[in-house]
Amino acid sequence: MVPVNSLGSTVVPIHDEEEGSSIAKKKPSPLSFLSSLLQKIGVEDPRKVVHCIKVGFALVLVSLLYLLQPLYDKFGDNAMWAIMTVVVVFEFSAGATLSKGLNRGMGTILGGGLGCLSALLARSVGGNGKAIAIAISVFIFGMAATYFRLVPSVKKKFEYGIVIFILTFNLVAVSGFRGEEIIKLAKDRLLTITIGFSISLFTSLLIFPVWAGDELHRSLKSKFDNVASSIEECLKEYFKLIDVEKTGTQSSGDLDRYKSVLHSKSSDESLANFARWEPWHGRFGFSYPWNKYLHVGEFLRELAASMIQLKACLPSHRQSPQCIRSTIKEPCEAMAVLICSALKELGDTIFNMRKCQRRESIVAELKMARQELNSTISTWKLGTLGNQTSSIRDELSMASFVFMLMEMVDKVEMLAKEVQELGELAGFISQ
Amino acid sequence: MVPVNSLGSTVVPIHDEEEGSSIAKKKPSPLSFLSSLLQKIGVEDPRKVVHCIKVGFALVLVSLLYLLQPLYDKFGDNAMWAIMTVVVVFEFSAGATLSKGLNRGMGTILGGGLGCLSALLARSVGGNGKAIAIAISVFIFGMAATYFRLVPSVKKKFEYGIVIFILTFNLVAVSGFRGEEIIKLAKDRLLTITIGFSISLFTSLLIFPVWAGDELHRSLKSKFDNVASSIEECLKEYFKLIDVEKTGTQSSGDLDRYKSVLHSKSSDESLANFARWEPWHGRFGFSYPWNKYLHVGEFLRELAASMIQLKACLPSHRQSPQCIRSTIKEPCEAMAVLICSALKELGDTIFNMRKCQRRESIVAELKMARQELNSTISTWKLGTLGNQTSSIRDELSMASFVFMLMEMVDKVEMLAKEVQELGELAGFISQ
Repeated sequence: MVPVNSLGSTVVPIHDEEEGSSIAKKKPSPLSFLSSLLQKIGVEDPRKVVHCIKVGFALVLVSLLYLLQPLYDKFGDNAMWAIMTVVVVFEFSAGATLSKGLNRGMGTILGGGLGCLSALLARSVGGNGKAIAIAISVFIFGMAATYFRLVPSVKKKFEYGIVIFILTFNLVAVSGFRGEEIIKLAKDRLLTITIGFSISLFTSLLIFPVWAGDELHRSLKSKFDNVASSIEECLKEYFKLIDVEKTGTQSSGDLDRYKSVLHSKSSDESLANFARWEPWHGRFGFSYPWNKYLHVGEFLRELAASMIQLKACLPSHRQSPQCIRSTIKEPCEAMAVLICSALKELGDTIFNMRKCQRRESIVAELKMARQELNSTISTWKLGTLGNQTSSIRDELSMASFVFMLMEMVDKVEMLAKEVQELGELAGFISQ
Repeated sequence: MVPVNSLGSTVVPIHDEEEGSSIAKKKPSPLSFLSSLLQKIGVEDPRKVVHCIKVGFALVLVSLLYLLQPLYDKFGDNAMWAIMTVVVVFEFSAGATLSKGLNRGMGTILGGGLGCLSALLARSVGGNGKAIAIAISVFIFGMAATYFRLVPSVKKKFEYGIVIFILTFNLVAVSGFRGEEIIKLAKDRLLTITIGFSISLFTSLLIFPVWAGDELHRSLKSKFDNVASSIEECLKEYFKLIDVEKTGTQSSGDLDRYKSVLHSKSSDESLANFARWEPWHGRFGFSYPWNKYLHVGEFLRELAASMIQLKACLPSHRQSPQCIRSTIKEPCEAMAVLICSALKELGDTIFNMRKCQRRESIVAELKMARQELNSTISTWKLGTLGNQTSSIRDELSMASFVFMLMEMVDKVEMLAKEVQELGELAGFISQ
């Protein structure tokens, strides 16, 4: 059941429900060991189960603030804020947990500080003016913070922090109005929030951590594989009728694997966003070039978009005559094989974090294949190709098919350059 | 500054920062009146300012629970939950506010109920077993709820509800352990949460409401316009060198307007998700076919993906000889004009919610244009087109360009069918 890759090490396939793709993870981490154990007893996605157990564990830990008398004596009902922090801050990946926790911390400190200030100022007004001063400050700060919340670039990284800012500011300002000891109140809440955050952090980062960076790293590799499989399958479909006429074999789902790549932009961006918060782990340092991952992803999405057009040329769409198609079968297939192997090689390069030594030979091979294809089709004459048996549109479709393949070669060449740059930025080792 | 549309009514352009597109909104609603007022004094996006004012207003309203003595006597510190609800639940659109509020309500009721039950059961155990029983229930419920939270389909609609469920369950269960009157506690909190929700709902739905449904409706129209503009601009670019050689005019940003369509899937889905929660407003009823909007959007995204390939054929990419291009200039331009006008007409049809009367004539016109293009290019012979001045690749590029246009015609035909179906489902009026 557990596949073994070409290097002989065990890999654990992890099903990513969001993108519908199947990605492979290398062995060494303790999480993968637990994962394979869970898989053996039939659990489909072990990482999720592990995450759930971790959340349950963190919740029990934080509940001890209520359940153990000495702790309750110290914190009292403020322990509530610790529970709240764990529930809200604990996310699937370590980066997301860190990002939310730090947002919560910053929002609380800023909101609490300004709330105290407002309350003290309002107190100095005194009388009925006090309530009015509080109301005005609540209105102005609430409005201003909400405006920031709507700015897209701020929203992406700090939305949660701003929500917590508004909340804390309001609570502290109005509690201050009530004459409670706001400094002590703010201090206690901050302390319990810190406890909650520490418990989340401890559980998320130290017990079988799931890194957003790892996730992005793997998903980039799986994008390469998905696009390559789609191209392979598309070529197979295109020339199928020639080889196995009327066998009517259903095309496998591989043909549509490019679709998961097509809509990966937003999930990539949020993963990169979280990955930036993550501390040094494995071979990912603090200044790891996650942005370059997004660039490479963009190229892969363009390739995936080309797949839509390549698919449009499939015989099932237009009944292009086989006799003509057979003339381009060999050079096209040779080209597709090169494209796919180049894609897979580039994906592996990134996944294994090794410098791509073969970039120049890849480019040279692709150039040669293109020339071969060029010379084959230079003998075509539109309108006469199929002895008048084919419509002009069928021929345009074929020309498009070839053109698209050539365009893909260009893109793969650019991709090879990008991957090389990534290797330099990220310090891939040369093997 | 304020543009006037063909019907003579004032439209308020609203800049959608998220998608980088400019969309127009018809007049009648009070929001647009306020919007145009705000725009006159130089506010770029009036809706956002209105939203911020609404949030500030709601915060002041809910703060009255603290600020007014009689209200504080009744609710005490539980008023905190009302403030929390307003801060967290109040979102930009009415649908999002409703969805979050109902999620919060359901999560609280369910979590509170089960929390009470767990606390009571634990009490019946007594002794040291009590704490252990609470800890076990916290662990099990936290784990199970987190697992549900990770299921993609549940996550989309109910993630926030589940977070609130875990939170409330934990708080109630551990408070119950402390021997507090948990039934009263749960009741008070539910009451204050209801107050907070009511204030949010009142402010969000009754004061210049922003409907997610309206947003989706407008964004669909703007998608049609964006794709049409891109196609127009691409054709202009393609044949530009023929008309205005060496004038070197920079291409306008219109060429790239398709990009905002390309990545609109997730924002469309969340808008549709919120729109479903929204009550009857304007001409959008409860069972309005928002799903069909997503289908139409999918077609438009495919068209936008075709644009990537169409753009790849631009002369700036490959120096295809003008003398050949000029042979297809007229039929291609005629076809593009038809495609663009069809797209704009379909977009208007949806925007104005009127039945598309011209579907058949649109389809007939497109067919005719395609035949004309067919007959023009049937005289081509690859490899001989440009008296050997052009490489085979340039010719393939031209063939692809024509093929892509023809493919677009197919897609527009299907789109016309989809729009007709939408009109039937949504009860568009025939004019």
